[in-house]
Amino acid sequence: MRPITEIAEKAGIPQEALELYGNYKAKINPLKLNTNTSSAKVVLVTAISPTPAGEGKSTVTVGLADALNQLNEKVIVALREPSLGPIMGMKGGATGGGYAQVLPMDDINLHFTGDLHAITTANNALAALIDNHIQQGNVLQIDPRRIIWKRCLDMNDRALRNIVIGLGGPVQGTPREDGFDITVASEIMAIFCLAKDLQDLKKRISDIVIGYTYQREPVFVRDLGVEGALTLLLRDAFKPNLVQTIEGTPAIIHGGPFANIAHGCNSIAATNTARKLADIVVTEAGFGADLGAEKFMNIKAMQGGLKPSTVVIVATARALKMHGGALKTELKAENVEAITKGIENLAKHVDTIRNFGVEPIIALNRFITDTEEELSVILNWCRENNVKIARTNVWEEGGKGGIELAKQVLSVINEENNFTPLYDISEPIEEKVRTIVQKVYGGMDVHFTDKALKQIVQIEKFGWDALPICMAKTQYSLSDQPNLLGRPENFTVTVREVIPKLGAKFLVCLTGDIMTMPGLPKAPAALKMDVDADGNAVGLF
Amino acid sequence: MRPITEIAEKAGIPQEALELYGNYKAKINPLKLNTNTSSAKVVLVTAISPTPAGEGKSTVTVGLADALNQLNEKVIVALREPSLGPIMGMKGGATGGGYAQVLPMDDINLHFTGDLHAITTANNALAALIDNHIQQGNVLQIDPRRIIWKRCLDMNDRALRNIVIGLGGPVQGTPREDGFDITVASEIMAIFCLAKDLQDLKKRISDIVIGYTYQREPVFVRDLGVEGALTLLLRDAFKPNLVQTIEGTPAIIHGGPFANIAHGCNSIAATNTARKLADIVVTEAGFGADLGAEKFMNIKAMQGGLKPSTVVIVATARALKMHGGALKTELKAENVEAITKGIENLAKHVDTIRNFGVEPIIALNRFITDTEEELSVILNWCRENNVKIARTNVWEEGGKGGIELAKQVLSVINEENNFTPLYDISEPIEEKVRTIVQKVYGGMDVHFTDKALKQIVQIEKFGWDALPICMAKTQYSLSDQPNLLGRPENFTVTVREVIPKLGAKFLVCLTGDIMTMPGLPKAPAALKMDVDADGNAVGLF
Repeated sequence: MRPITEIAEKAGIPQEALELYGNYKAKINPLKLNTNTSSAKVVLVTAISPTPAGEGKSTVTVGLADALNQLNEKVIVALREPSLGPIMGMKGGATGGGYAQVLPMDDINLHFTGDLHAITTANNALAALIDNHIQQGNVLQIDPRRIIWKRCLDMNDRALRNIVIGLGGPVQGTPREDGFDITVASEIMAIFCLAKDLQDLKKRISDIVIGYTYQREPVFVRDLGVEGALTLLLRDAFKPNLVQTIEGTPAIIHGGPFANIAHGCNSIAATNTARKLADIVVTEAGFGADLGAEKFMNIKAMQGGLKPSTVVIVATARALKMHGGALKTELKAENVEAITKGIENLAKHVDTIRNFGVEPIIALNRFITDTEEELSVILNWCRENNVKIARTNVWEEGGKGGIELAKQVLSVINEENNFTPLYDISEPIEEKVRTIVQKVYGGMDVHFTDKALKQIVQIEKFGWDALPICMAKTQYSLSDQPNLLGRPENFTVTVREVIPKLGAKFLVCLTGDIMTMPGLPKAPAALKMDVDADGNAVGLF
Repeated sequence: MRPITEIAEKAGIPQEALELYGNYKAKINPLKLNTNTSSAKVVLVTAISPTPAGEGKSTVTVGLADALNQLNEKVIVALREPSLGPIMGMKGGATGGGYAQVLPMDDINLHFTGDLHAITTANNALAALIDNHIQQGNVLQIDPRRIIWKRCLDMNDRALRNIVIGLGGPVQGTPREDGFDITVASEIMAIFCLAKDLQDLKKRISDIVIGYTYQREPVFVRDLGVEGALTLLLRDAFKPNLVQTIEGTPAIIHGGPFANIAHGCNSIAATNTARKLADIVVTEAGFGADLGAEKFMNIKAMQGGLKPSTVVIVATARALKMHGGALKTELKAENVEAITKGIENLAKHVDTIRNFGVEPIIALNRFITDTEEELSVILNWCRENNVKIARTNVWEEGGKGGIELAKQVLSVINEENNFTPLYDISEPIEEKVRTIVQKVYGGMDVHFTDKALKQIVQIEKFGWDALPICMAKTQYSLSDQPNLLGRPENFTVTVREVIPKLGAKFLVCLTGDIMTMPGLPKAPAALKMDVDADGNAVGLF
């Protein structure tokens, strides 16, 4: 690793804008950067629908940035911060892999610079202030049955999904139903990632709807008068974090909403900071193009005044094999037939990106067990369908393994594309959701439960309907049923709740049985973690 | 402020042991310090029973260190980290006051270097892993009705004191009673503050009792096998934090258990790091001498191999006036009679410190409204009772206002004292508690509820009784009833629960109606907090 001061200098960040966190991490104060707007190109990396076989999206994102760096482009990679929930649960780490990683891996995967903790704290300070307001006389007449603000933890903790609080008698609060979300699904996280600056952050926080009065009127954070305190709790966290890739490319890692239960993109503050400093910003959006990329296009790009100059879709032979019906236990065996069938998942994501007016580039991310015959199925399909494709081998080779992809990216990013969001936010809520289901998921229709329909009526009554939609949907399928792999058709998506997030400026639609608080698996990754005698981390990968 | 690298150099901390957090904060890696044991003297600062009038204990602690620094002594001040709970609630800040403060005040009061967040995370990771173990088949046969491990937040949130979790059906966990403590009351915080090194930290975590099986056998963290992961979550936080006073005296701030519901002292890691570097370490223990100082003597000093070379008791005329019956609204008026009566509170704390074999020094901390006649009541009482006393005016004058106190401290710290804890840990639990109640609180006896008696039987059955006692008691009174000010007598303290904390190596006794999760007041300090247009904090003081 090179000292972070060197990386900062390379990125053109002046000393006075830098706040060191040890020798290899720093926060960047955007107020102290040259504030000229930028003509930097944004390259979005997305993927096919994920499977347990893995597609290596973060790895390709980092590897592509390193490749552009090798080609002497002025490039910064912008990524999300990992959540401790999946790290303790399934994954054990989230910083890319092999020779395409961001460093220092331990720190980034553990508490990093504390941003998620600050978000958790602001979220829960608001919750405590709401319950305290009720306890101290409830001047605002908040109906404890109609509070929609939930508590949160950066943890996978299913036992906190549905709880009853305030038990124990009058001194201990008012009994009511409540629940914890994972921090990455908090509206504070969304606001943190969508706010342009500290003033915008505070304004958005003041606009959060926390619940309704006994008279069914909405109650906002500004009614409680605590937006200043919550903004203060986020002040330092709101500065983007600078680290580096293994090859010394500057990386800005900031904000980390999941793409299934939230909007799935790193902060606008990070992307815009990177755009001020570099000519090319490589960024990723979470899970498949149906989730992160859709929200990048319809939410982040619109709110941040960005447009993607091109979109890379990461695909692997292994994952397409699973989409074609192969079992997880048989992925090492050649299976041309399964890939031939499974490629329909990739085809759908290509169609989706084209629906946004952007021509995608496929990154065919090589795994050691892939056979040439398997790979040629994908290459041939791309040729036949006029889809750009580049082979990548960044896990093994770092930036060198991404040169072909980088060259393809460079060949198109200076051309104007026809990027446009899929819907106009002034359309009715049901229409906007239907557009996403049909044009992005490839489904037939949407079913709104009675509860969702009532919520829509209420949202329209208050005039909050002219906002984009943030779908909460399983990442495993294009539909809302996790077991439907490949390219399902003729399905109907069920929207069971519509929740206004006026601070984030979007409406969340919960589909299927997606949970905003994940659970831990039978054998959590935590069981393998340790610290050795010299204080080194064990079990993060 | 001077750059923290300068402060480190002054303190004799080598570059390689320093991890910068911005320009004015750093973590110290104790593994990279010279490990020679030290003959440094430890000066403990405690106080009379606190009142809303304030006694300025942190201010005097910092001012005394600055005064010793002015006298060219090699001194470091070791303090606790503030909790966001009281900052958002009552106090708005906790870094001393006036010209006797630690800096940077904003950072220390907000998230600082994230230590409390790491402790919260480790505490709640354990809770999630326990509930997940039950959900995934419960091989250990943990009885959900007998889990004693609670969740925590660094927040005053009374609605979380008594909750029911795991509602919503079989996929969402097992319904059971639970509750949140404030982070500073977590056993992880106690362990963090009492562990000698990373190995000891891990060993103690593995020894935590989380609950009991259906067969009523204890279940330890080691049975779950997650002590490695929890230690990893604490690894970086466990390094003590270096900051500075306004006058540039090195300050180590690390760990922050409250003294009413926990053991009330900064970490042994911090105190021992300071002892390696300085000749004199000035440290404080929370609230009055009945709480923080008692636990410093009986718990921290014993576990850390320390002894206090002298003890300073901070007193103010205003607070003694309240102990003598003056109303909070009448404190500005001279009231010699009330002080003459209220001095009995100070007298009890003097007796207490003498019971430990140490001769205390009173710091008479001046407030602007004190009259000379009021102060002379206290000075005369000290003279008549052969108690050392020094006037301090550090809020207004910084170290200069503490020179008289510093000189008195210097005149005694090289003499051997007869320091000894008040009880032998091998005595029966009831005896140890009775000793504290009689010799420290000045009470007559202890009443154990049936529940507490049953718990004692169980603790003895498992052989866990040879541990010191950590009393949880109101800070406002020497008794367990907050409204009994002054020096109450002939009272009985009720112990309603006895909770084994085998990782911390003490037994917690809950008395009266003390809560391990505080609530917010009617007008929380949060209402006045804000960030100005330049990003400066408003409303922290």
